[in-house]
Amino acid sequence: MTAPQITAAVYRGDQRFAVAQKPAPTPEPGQVAVRIAFCGICGTDMHVFHGNMDARVGFERIIGHEMSGTVEALGDGVDGLTKGQKVVVRPLDHCGDCPACTAGHSHICHNLKFLGLDTDGAMQEVWTVPAHTLHALPDDMRLDHAALIEPVAVACHDVRMSGLRTGEDVVVIGGGPIGVLVAMVAREAGGKVVISEVNENRLALAKDMGFDVVNPAGSDLVEEITRRTDGKGADVVFEVSGSQPGVDAMTDVAATRGRVVMVAIHAKKPTVDMFRFFWRELQLIGARVYEPQDYDRAISLVASGAIAADKVITDVSPLSQIQQAFEALDASPTAMKSLIKVGA
Amino acid sequence: MTAPQITAAVYRGDQRFAVAQKPAPTPEPGQVAVRIAFCGICGTDMHVFHGNMDARVGFERIIGHEMSGTVEALGDGVDGLTKGQKVVVRPLDHCGDCPACTAGHSHICHNLKFLGLDTDGAMQEVWTVPAHTLHALPDDMRLDHAALIEPVAVACHDVRMSGLRTGEDVVVIGGGPIGVLVAMVAREAGGKVVISEVNENRLALAKDMGFDVVNPAGSDLVEEITRRTDGKGADVVFEVSGSQPGVDAMTDVAATRGRVVMVAIHAKKPTVDMFRFFWRELQLIGARVYEPQDYDRAISLVASGAIAADKVITDVSPLSQIQQAFEALDASPTAMKSLIKVGA
Repeated sequence: MTAPQITAAVYRGDQRFAVAQKPAPTPEPGQVAVRIAFCGICGTDMHVFHGNMDARVGFERIIGHEMSGTVEALGDGVDGLTKGQKVVVRPLDHCGDCPACTAGHSHICHNLKFLGLDTDGAMQEVWTVPAHTLHALPDDMRLDHAALIEPVAVACHDVRMSGLRTGEDVVVIGGGPIGVLVAMVAREAGGKVVISEVNENRLALAKDMGFDVVNPAGSDLVEEITRRTDGKGADVVFEVSGSQPGVDAMTDVAATRGRVVMVAIHAKKPTVDMFRFFWRELQLIGARVYEPQDYDRAISLVASGAIAADKVITDVSPLSQIQQAFEALDASPTAMKSLIKVGA
Repeated sequence: MTAPQITAAVYRGDQRFAVAQKPAPTPEPGQVAVRIAFCGICGTDMHVFHGNMDARVGFERIIGHEMSGTVEALGDGVDGLTKGQKVVVRPLDHCGDCPACTAGHSHICHNLKFLGLDTDGAMQEVWTVPAHTLHALPDDMRLDHAALIEPVAVACHDVRMSGLRTGEDVVVIGGGPIGVLVAMVAREAGGKVVISEVNENRLALAKDMGFDVVNPAGSDLVEEITRRTDGKGADVVFEVSGSQPGVDAMTDVAATRGRVVMVAIHAKKPTVDMFRFFWRELQLIGARVYEPQDYDRAISLVASGAIAADKVITDVSPLSQIQQAFEALDASPTAMKSLIKVGA
């Protein structure tokens, strides 16, 4: 008897995926096998595609972590889940021993394994993961929408870390996929949100999602926020652009004692207006990935329809077309979130 | 009958003071006349001396704000104070109307008048100030020690803004006058404090005050803090150096979720490791001047002896010698706090 086979997409380096058959994995003790329904393409996955993370992922890696699926099989010692149940995976596996884990911040464990980068991920029909990473979904949730829960959880973490209160003025700098999700979660938390974005396609999309928008290439963002807030400035700013102009703007638009959340990854050190931090007593809050409560919140926001999932999801491709899907997303000036339909 | 005369030191530009007689001021309604005992020389006063603030202060200004004194006379409508009572002035006068005042942050009012810079200050025998700026002192407090209350209040504000808890690891980057006061207040709040400083004279002083010290020019600060904290890093970092190496160090020595307080004035925008803020979920907290409760705390710390006032105060000169005192402080590699004895 031969082991059952599944289809998987393997990153082979140099912007290439190989779609191939492999033996279906069986869950080890403490693991769960998840049958993958959908898996979104994250900005990080695009970095892998471009070869920027080869040293970390190698050329045998099945990537993917923005997924939804159903429970396929339980390893020994796992209970509380039933076969067929809809689930998502919080793709973080921590060591439990480092100073971050000891202090209760295991989501940013010093030895964190990010599932789908440091281990194989969800661009395969069946994925085995530690049981502690699973979150159960409502039975009636659409599994394409559920593939947004991971990036929505990022946004929920960012907004929670900001301490946003109802009625506060919010500026989101950068209107890409994470920017619009942060904006949606901030709006749901009672924030009065303005999105700053230079790409006209993204501006149109953000507008279509009901947001006030400013293009700082065409108008004076600081003047506009000052006018809208009667001279006060933004109580909360999310820097999602990863750009020097974004970093310049984040201090300029913030109100006295405003909170600036650093969402973007700045590989290069920008210059930062430290005098403004001092003068206006601004706060900068670094925020990375998510904690379990952020997943709970994300699930509830996707379930309630507060996340405009159908507007965020631009296209869906079958796993067999993953190569074309990455190429198309890479070339598209308008796409927000592309999903891969992994399941049959 | 001629009006009584007092002695005052007037900044005339180009590193020059003129010591002269002027009519004794009488308090307007809502004001208090304070007979000045001592006035410390602040780093800001040294900036004035060097001509860096001429546009703001002009050439008729009596500077000085780190003062102690006694109540000389009360203007109409002022009560709760008695003649001869020991007092200090919190030298901030706010507008009450701007967004910062409206939000309850009047200490960083957008139209803040800093007494002794934007108005005449304490380098004169009698100073009239708004009654709301006064804090009463214990009768038995030494007035030379009381001249430290203003800079100690800065340190109290910095430490309060950091949220420092007992047992936390603290690094103070920069061991000048404000740095050592921050270190003393942090130690009093239960912090385990290390001072990082490159000047060997200041290192020796900090050591003499009982602090653990590191010279980052001679040893690896990050390695040293990592070793002392079992790999965790500092829970709270105070950047008091105002230097690019200080800004580099502040992110490198901080623990996961560490809080970095921006105390220094960075006139030039430094490059900042924003990735580290994201990756370790660090927080940056701008902290400027003080609020009334910081003065209350500072008074109690000076009164209790928790501030090593006799070690911080390097020398005392009479008002007639203010020119020499500024010149000596400017030239001294070892001086911490120089006081001017204004009163007879």
